[in-house]
Amino acid sequence: MFDLLSESPLGRRGRLTTPHGVIESPFFMPVGTGGAMKGLSHHEIVELGAQILLCNTYHLHLRPGETIVQEIGGLHEYIGWNKPILTDSGGYQVFSLRGISKIDETGVKFQSHIDGSPLFIGPEESMKIQHALGSDIIMCFDHCPPSTAARADILAAVDRTLRWAAICKKTHDELNARNGTASLLFGIVQGGLEADLRKKCAEELIAIGFDGYAVGGLAVGETEAEMYDVLDYVLPSLPKDKPRYLMGVGKINQLLESVKKGIDMFDCVLPMREARHGNLILSADETIKISAGRYLHDHSVIDEHSPSPLSRLHRKSYLSYLLRTGERYGETIACMQNLGLTLQALDDLRGQMDS
Amino acid sequence: MFDLLSESPLGRRGRLTTPHGVIESPFFMPVGTGGAMKGLSHHEIVELGAQILLCNTYHLHLRPGETIVQEIGGLHEYIGWNKPILTDSGGYQVFSLRGISKIDETGVKFQSHIDGSPLFIGPEESMKIQHALGSDIIMCFDHCPPSTAARADILAAVDRTLRWAAICKKTHDELNARNGTASLLFGIVQGGLEADLRKKCAEELIAIGFDGYAVGGLAVGETEAEMYDVLDYVLPSLPKDKPRYLMGVGKINQLLESVKKGIDMFDCVLPMREARHGNLILSADETIKISAGRYLHDHSVIDEHSPSPLSRLHRKSYLSYLLRTGERYGETIACMQNLGLTLQALDDLRGQMDS
Repeated sequence: MFDLLSESPLGRRGRLTTPHGVIESPFFMPVGTGGAMKGLSHHEIVELGAQILLCNTYHLHLRPGETIVQEIGGLHEYIGWNKPILTDSGGYQVFSLRGISKIDETGVKFQSHIDGSPLFIGPEESMKIQHALGSDIIMCFDHCPPSTAARADILAAVDRTLRWAAICKKTHDELNARNGTASLLFGIVQGGLEADLRKKCAEELIAIGFDGYAVGGLAVGETEAEMYDVLDYVLPSLPKDKPRYLMGVGKINQLLESVKKGIDMFDCVLPMREARHGNLILSADETIKISAGRYLHDHSVIDEHSPSPLSRLHRKSYLSYLLRTGERYGETIACMQNLGLTLQALDDLRGQMDS
Repeated sequence: MFDLLSESPLGRRGRLTTPHGVIESPFFMPVGTGGAMKGLSHHEIVELGAQILLCNTYHLHLRPGETIVQEIGGLHEYIGWNKPILTDSGGYQVFSLRGISKIDETGVKFQSHIDGSPLFIGPEESMKIQHALGSDIIMCFDHCPPSTAARADILAAVDRTLRWAAICKKTHDELNARNGTASLLFGIVQGGLEADLRKKCAEELIAIGFDGYAVGGLAVGETEAEMYDVLDYVLPSLPKDKPRYLMGVGKINQLLESVKKGIDMFDCVLPMREARHGNLILSADETIKISAGRYLHDHSVIDEHSPSPLSRLHRKSYLSYLLRTGERYGETIACMQNLGLTLQALDDLRGQMDS
């Protein structure tokens, strides 16, 4: 399912095959939380170079609910997207919720952030929901402790993550067999900043056997050096013939550095969120606060080398004005710019690897 | 500047030439208030058939202000739109404001709805702002009384509108001559539902002489029959060789009926506003409340004959879900559908007139 085409000081160049097509790696996944990317159309993000869309199981479970999605045969049909989809497990959201009521060995009881209704997700439920959604890449339901947790709590979370991973694997295989599907399942390496716990988690996940391995619990407040340290002691443990996914990282320089260390795939809301806050990435490898008042008088083109046609057409002054006045078109222009440059960074990198 | 190509029971077929190109009439103008159409890109609305964009002088005067727009040579350059632009006079907004402080013969004193700062617009100011914006079609600054006003108030408003129209014409001609531009100026026929006042207003505007004539103060609460009555007694007074613009009307059946009566052009926020509220126009000449719960299970394509590619791709269930959860992509899909069908209605009508 994963072909490692080459390795170089730039990183790994590969090809991941999913039920809905082949993805060239390394790659970045835009986050379409509830099956949509804010104001951007599917067509637009594909034009910018998106090969796969990440959707959030938690949000889709709450609304519209996987039953509705299943009526029409899964998320691809439901949202009109014919490329691969990765769904997260819902774990990150339910563990971050303030409405959480109880965590035990079976899973997490929590309250819907929409109407307060009581809900429960455990490893089996997460697999069932993700299979009902028809995801191409399914993520194990893991226990995500706060980044500030004590070592004992992180160890307990790792052990539970491993027990849940075994349940996920078993449930996933049964569902694939029953439905005649070939969804991939990725394990998630937890362990905070504790080198030995990360290593233990990786090794025991490998013993269970997954289609890919994610590094979770990073980009949540630790320093960049600490994050790279974790990669340095996790990645050598992972099998070379499986894709490695660094969750929640989306700064371009961090993508390039992490690929060097052996990562193949990423997701992050950062490019879109920064865009909405007026922080614009430019091709010249700088970030500007486009919503600052001084750009109201800067009539130069936003970015003449941008992969986004809107950034090649429009002026900084116009974008600054739109964002400052809350005009939605401003968000569209800025989101396409930041997402386009993020996708292009890895596209360019693949080109360098191939040449 | 306006070529009347044919007349038939369907209405007038014409061609309006502006500094930024030729517009085939009858036509509908999308309203891009502050120089943008919510989440839709310029490219998208042109693809849907837009030939011209209407922008609001009041909003642009407040932010970013015509001085900034002038720095880069006008609104077309500023917003990246190379087709014609019509600007309204600002009159409708300043007369509708709650922050209005004083109306006299020179104009209207009012407070900015943004920061409360004191502002003033009269006929000369409106001309100067619209010329600074570089509009192709400039509207006279008129006195718009409430639709419920007494006859004496409507008469006073008509007389003032006529005095202001003369000032607008003089100022406009001077600005065109000074700047070497060829912007068009349209007069606005007011007079409420009073047949004789409408006729008087039309005749005295014609005596001043404008490039086109608008019928204002309609679609503000009167019945449809009352609106058509006004057209019936105004339109015969107007010169055949000038375009006639019915302001603020955007329901497709009203567009078609008004064209039959002799109208050539329209603007309205209605298609976009209805879309955002979940009221979707379909090609089958029906309107549905797509955000209603029952559409959550209707997986049929939104509108397979739609001019909008998004409506041919996506399902009603997905659009219903997006609108109900406040996902912006839902607004984009719905706005493109309603705007697309509105533009297509007149495009189709022109086709029928030509065949």
